[in-house]
Amino acid sequence: MNGNGIVSSDEFDLSDRSTYSHWHQVTIRSTDEDPLGHVNNCVYASWIEVARVMLIRRYLAVAGNDIDTALVNLSIDFLKETTFPGNVEVGARLLGIGNSSIRSGYGVFRDGQCLATSRCVNVFFDLNARRSTVPNDEMRAIMEQDLA
Amino acid sequence: MNGNGIVSSDEFDLSDRSTYSHWHQVTIRSTDEDPLGHVNNCVYASWIEVARVMLIRRYLAVAGNDIDTALVNLSIDFLKETTFPGNVEVGARLLGIGNSSIRSGYGVFRDGQCLATSRCVNVFFDLNARRSTVPNDEMRAIMEQDLA
Amino acid sequence: MNGNGIVSSDEFDLSDRSTYSHWHQVTIRSTDEDPLGHVNNCVYASWIEVARVMLIRRYLAVAGNDIDTALVNLSIDFLKETTFPGNVEVGARLLGIGNSSIRSGYGVFRDGQCLATSRCVNVFFDLNARRSTVPNDEMRAIMEQDLA
Amino acid sequence: MNGNGIVSSDEFDLSDRSTYSHWHQVTIRSTDEDPLGHVNNCVYASWIEVARVMLIRRYLAVAGNDIDTALVNLSIDFLKETTFPGNVEVGARLLGIGNSSIRSGYGVFRDGQCLATSRCVNVFFDLNARRSTVPNDEMRAIMEQDLA
Repeated sequence: MNGNGIVSSDEFDLSDRSTYSHWHQVTIRSTDEDPLGHVNNCVYASWIEVARVMLIRRYLAVAGNDIDTALVNLSIDFLKETTFPGNVEVGARLLGIGNSSIRSGYGVFRDGQCLATSRCVNVFFDLNARRSTVPNDEMRAIMEQDLA
Repeated sequence: MNGNGIVSSDEFDLSDRSTYSHWHQVTIRSTDEDPLGHVNNCVYASWIEVARVMLIRRYLAVAGNDIDTALVNLSIDFLKETTFPGNVEVGARLLGIGNSSIRSGYGVFRDGQCLATSRCVNVFFDLNARRSTVPNDEMRAIMEQDLA
Repeated sequence: MNGNGIVSSDEFDLSDRSTYSHWHQVTIRSTDEDPLGHVNNCVYASWIEVARVMLIRRYLAVAGNDIDTALVNLSIDFLKETTFPGNVEVGARLLGIGNSSIRSGYGVFRDGQCLATSRCVNVFFDLNARRSTVPNDEMRAIMEQDLA
Repeated sequence: MNGNGIVSSDEFDLSDRSTYSHWHQVTIRSTDEDPLGHVNNCVYASWIEVARVMLIRRYLAVAGNDIDTALVNLSIDFLKETTFPGNVEVGARLLGIGNSSIRSGYGVFRDGQCLATSRCVNVFFDLNARRSTVPNDEMRAIMEQDLA
């Protein structure tokens, strides 16, 4: 942790499966395809959200009922197109812990190839006060363990 | 009203614009299109839901906070395909009032043509008791007025 | 087959798993949930479409390139709500074969419970002539075998 | 244009309505809402896609049938939550022209407030050769005029 209370780690290769410890399989739906006959870009965001929600739920589980997160930035690099039917696997990992925010990274894989990578920034906020907040020590400990 | 507390009206031609008094315009999105280059069937359900939610909110407005509705049947007849970009207009009307349920009808129109019609059944339920319920007199009066 | 060229079979209990021989697993996404905290009705249509597209692709595989189907009616009975995360299993089966159309049935299951059933009508059409058409003998034989 | 054939312009404030000359109105759907009762993040991507597809179609209109674009990066900053029902307005503008790619920017507005901004990178590709390509002079002229 540096003087600003920021814990981060060296950046990872998000297109490398070994970067990820948390995995979620998501079924491709026929409705995911667009007029070009491959999966629409916006659908990747919904696959990544499955992994992001599950990653953050692990941290929020020790946070009490008054805290949640809000996504403030989503960035996706599209590397390869894909088609229905089948499944994709989405890897997730924490990339950095700020005072009131976290950065997380994702990779979408199929048949040994990386289809997309993504970086997200989420802010912790207090559901009662309706403003950003700082995670409690227990949540922070779990996140630091996950980042290591 | 018959002996069973059922109020209904003669069935309407759901493909006729004059059937409807409540209207909602919905923008077609590029993501609505499928590999055949026209709007996917499932998307019609989301357009119709815009009109259904708004129709029923008018009734629930006088119902108190403890009552909501659950959709129990959705049926859609697809009459004509359509494409992005543009807008559709969705007409809505109440078709019948049961003791604890209502039937409603919808028409999706574009450029003077009917693209689809739909019939829905919603059940009223008590959010606290988690079971079906009967609308109060005020809500029932508004619905009967709307049906007439 | 009766005098009108219609092949059908006795109706099945669509809420009974033993009705189905074709199965598809679909992942629930966090984006599938609505403000009430359970999966939105329209999402069921996208799950059912996965099973319908795969069912019909088996028949179209022997039909040549000039024929496809169009969905003309979709009906869904919603039996039970469900939530993210998890998977649903969608069973599919042919219910009847007309001259230029087929009827199919679907059941959405989770943890041994039926969440929804659905009936669909699809019309065969000639992609070149842009009008409804009759399946060839080979496709019809496969469908009759599947219906039996 | 610099020595690398890159045309760009000073960066714009994407949260300022005056930045945009191309506008598209998009209806919010009830299905756009998530369990927190506001519009889900992924939905913003579909709104922005409406504006991006329409922006790029203007350039492709003079490009012949063999060229299309592929989205290679999407980044969204979420500034403010919003709810159903209503409409959003999406502003679009070109931000830069590379040899075989373009950068574009977007702002999502409602009631005078900016809900989100977005930056996208699209690559031009040859539909026959299945590889990236360079726009013809006519397309480039239209894009440079739009960028000015």
